[in-house]
Amino acid sequence: MITNPKSKAVSILDANRNTGTTEGLSPADQQLYGRRRNVIGAAAPLLYDTPVHVVSGNGAWLTDAAGRRYLDMYNNVASVGHGNPHVARAIAHQVQQLNTHTRYLHDAIVDYGERLLPTTGIHDARLMLTCTGSEANDVALRAARRLTGREGVIVTESAYHGNTFLVSAVSPSTNTPAPWVEVIPPPNPAIADEADLGAWWAHQVSAACGRLTERGYGVAALLVDSVFSSDGIYPTAMGTLAEASEVVHRCGGLVIADEVQPGFGRLGHSMWGHTWAGLNPDFMTTGKPMGNGMPVAAMLGRSDLLDAFLTKENYFNTFAGNPVSMAAAAAVLDEIETNDLISHTADVGTMLLRSTRTACQGSPHVGAVRGMGLYLAVDIIGPKGGSNTATAARVVNSMRDHGVLISVAGPSASTLKIRPPLIITTAQAQIFVDALKETLAALTNAH
Amino acid sequence: MITNPKSKAVSILDANRNTGTTEGLSPADQQLYGRRRNVIGAAAPLLYDTPVHVVSGNGAWLTDAAGRRYLDMYNNVASVGHGNPHVARAIAHQVQQLNTHTRYLHDAIVDYGERLLPTTGIHDARLMLTCTGSEANDVALRAARRLTGREGVIVTESAYHGNTFLVSAVSPSTNTPAPWVEVIPPPNPAIADEADLGAWWAHQVSAACGRLTERGYGVAALLVDSVFSSDGIYPTAMGTLAEASEVVHRCGGLVIADEVQPGFGRLGHSMWGHTWAGLNPDFMTTGKPMGNGMPVAAMLGRSDLLDAFLTKENYFNTFAGNPVSMAAAAAVLDEIETNDLISHTADVGTMLLRSTRTACQGSPHVGAVRGMGLYLAVDIIGPKGGSNTATAARVVNSMRDHGVLISVAGPSASTLKIRPPLIITTAQAQIFVDALKETLAALTNAH
Repeated sequence: MITNPKSKAVSILDANRNTGTTEGLSPADQQLYGRRRNVIGAAAPLLYDTPVHVVSGNGAWLTDAAGRRYLDMYNNVASVGHGNPHVARAIAHQVQQLNTHTRYLHDAIVDYGERLLPTTGIHDARLMLTCTGSEANDVALRAARRLTGREGVIVTESAYHGNTFLVSAVSPSTNTPAPWVEVIPPPNPAIADEADLGAWWAHQVSAACGRLTERGYGVAALLVDSVFSSDGIYPTAMGTLAEASEVVHRCGGLVIADEVQPGFGRLGHSMWGHTWAGLNPDFMTTGKPMGNGMPVAAMLGRSDLLDAFLTKENYFNTFAGNPVSMAAAAAVLDEIETNDLISHTADVGTMLLRSTRTACQGSPHVGAVRGMGLYLAVDIIGPKGGSNTATAARVVNSMRDHGVLISVAGPSASTLKIRPPLIITTAQAQIFVDALKETLAALTNAH
Repeated sequence: MITNPKSKAVSILDANRNTGTTEGLSPADQQLYGRRRNVIGAAAPLLYDTPVHVVSGNGAWLTDAAGRRYLDMYNNVASVGHGNPHVARAIAHQVQQLNTHTRYLHDAIVDYGERLLPTTGIHDARLMLTCTGSEANDVALRAARRLTGREGVIVTESAYHGNTFLVSAVSPSTNTPAPWVEVIPPPNPAIADEADLGAWWAHQVSAACGRLTERGYGVAALLVDSVFSSDGIYPTAMGTLAEASEVVHRCGGLVIADEVQPGFGRLGHSMWGHTWAGLNPDFMTTGKPMGNGMPVAAMLGRSDLLDAFLTKENYFNTFAGNPVSMAAAAAVLDEIETNDLISHTADVGTMLLRSTRTACQGSPHVGAVRGMGLYLAVDIIGPKGGSNTATAARVVNSMRDHGVLISVAGPSASTLKIRPPLIITTAQAQIFVDALKETLAALTNAH
């Protein structure tokens, strides 16, 4: 029998979900909302108490049907900017030229691989393209289990790794984990001193390895997002995750770095979160910002492992690595390189973290403020210091009303998730900071 | 323990795979081939003994790096033509306008759903967008298992339903089926008379239901491609699959029509194969031709079931249903409607089947020739009438040398798979027929 009851924790997919009211929507938007319910159903999530009807995007701005602009402080997919002209031109050119699968020789996939692979720091890496991060994590886990001959997987307690049957089972933030999954806490600096955090987390991983072995599953893989996005965003000091990685390798398991969120420069240090965190992965997966919205993603890793997997199992993905996807992905790399977006991310990120901390100072609703690069977390707390889901939702909806889009993360959906496109300017970041300050002040006055 | 050894049957992914020789390639292409091996590895399939280096496409033609044109009689993805200008313009326009996920209100997904859903013949249908057919089948199976509380799935013996962990397990053509899978033969007219074929196949399904129940898995779903593409292409007479569908429903299982290959008019009868075959599905899935190469796919079906599933489990897919994918998908529907492509498919398909039969007449290498719409099968046989994998590969490679691209299907990869874009003309179809005639004659003379 299959037992997979809906998780009792606040699902990240439920967080800030519109609950079915159309208050605040124009008559035309109310009509669209109703038609959407008929087509997609009631369970398909829309963000915010009053959903936003987007019609166009430009850089860090989204515009709604009434012509109102919203500062996008949430979307990591359009990482080089909404409607990025260089990416748009690359797609427009290639789509009229050729778009087909990878069973023919074509330059684009080879050129792209030769640019991407050296950035990963994985020795003698190979590329396996997919269309989504879910597909990438699915095949990475399949490969890890096939290669180790074991089933057990370790993930963090509010991890999200995608939507297929297999990766839903390792995504406690949306689904109840399968029996062969062990969950561990993220390396929360509230638990251990920074200097001890790596050893503490390695101990968690080691204990989970022990439990998986004891339960007969063995250790196939540690699958981890190096910035712990869904757990509430916990950037660590450099090298913090190295010890845990060694533990997994000693147990004969593989380390899979899920770079779907931290990857492509978001942390402002290098292209990948695992490099900073010291994960030393066997495989890494990526997705969301890879094509600035084109459905392109990848699993990549050690060539000996990938080759061995592909002699044991067959894999083909019709749309993956097609010339249009590769054109989009190459154009994203161009933008990151040409505009030095990683340094830019570090610079604006540093300013944003500092200004956000200042804006939150003295607010009784804010606990910790964390961040690295353009990935920030603001814990919203209640009077006794615990997490406060309802107030976090109020902040997010109030920010939306101020014209700034953010969302939430973490096990109780009480951590503000601030994750703008990388091309955001310091002036735009300041708009967010001002809106947050006003929102927090209004909250305090209302109490 | 996981036991999933590579299937011993000829995998459809291995069929016509280049075996590593670069004979016949130009020096520049040999270099590209070598670079590709370094980036993607040896196991990534390329078609043909001498791979084709494609650089552009136009309608039913593909052009290689040396300027040689190939008639595309194989690709069902670029269904409304390579480089289709209407689709290309729709994508080019939308990608500079906006490309984001579906948690905001947007017109395109609603407009598309309202056009697509009425074509399915499924009462009160709802739409769940994904990026690939694999994702669509993955979530359809997840839903069927969750809704029925059972695990068992029935598929045909050489079925292919995708590349995720879950759907690989129901794809005997590429992977060994999981223990909870029962495989049955396709409705091969060589086995039973046309009038009896429906009852014969329903009996196979019924027996498989019985075995699944006996083995404790129960019946979650029959997952079936109504034209049995990977099994060797077996179009049935109208309504042939209706009885089997009733059997599954009586067992409390769901019927999932995998329309990734027969869908969007390929059979020249209606939009969907299940309508012709009488499958009466609860869910259907689609993919490949939906966006003419854009990674867009869907699972859709009865609203009561989809709504019930989504109250039990969470599902979100970042790229699915984005405005660019929806623009591409809508442009494909425009092309099908404006150019009356379904009638065109029926007309050219009828001519193609008749001419192919004539061309094959008298060849000792050809057994049955089957087809419906623009989906044809030619069984290549040996001297004793059995399937002949090696000769089929010779035909495919010879056709490539004649400038016509086809491939193979079936459990022994000995059935020629002829599946051109729907926009092919009768004159182009005749080029294929002439090349096939010459190829078969040369084969006979060589013996």
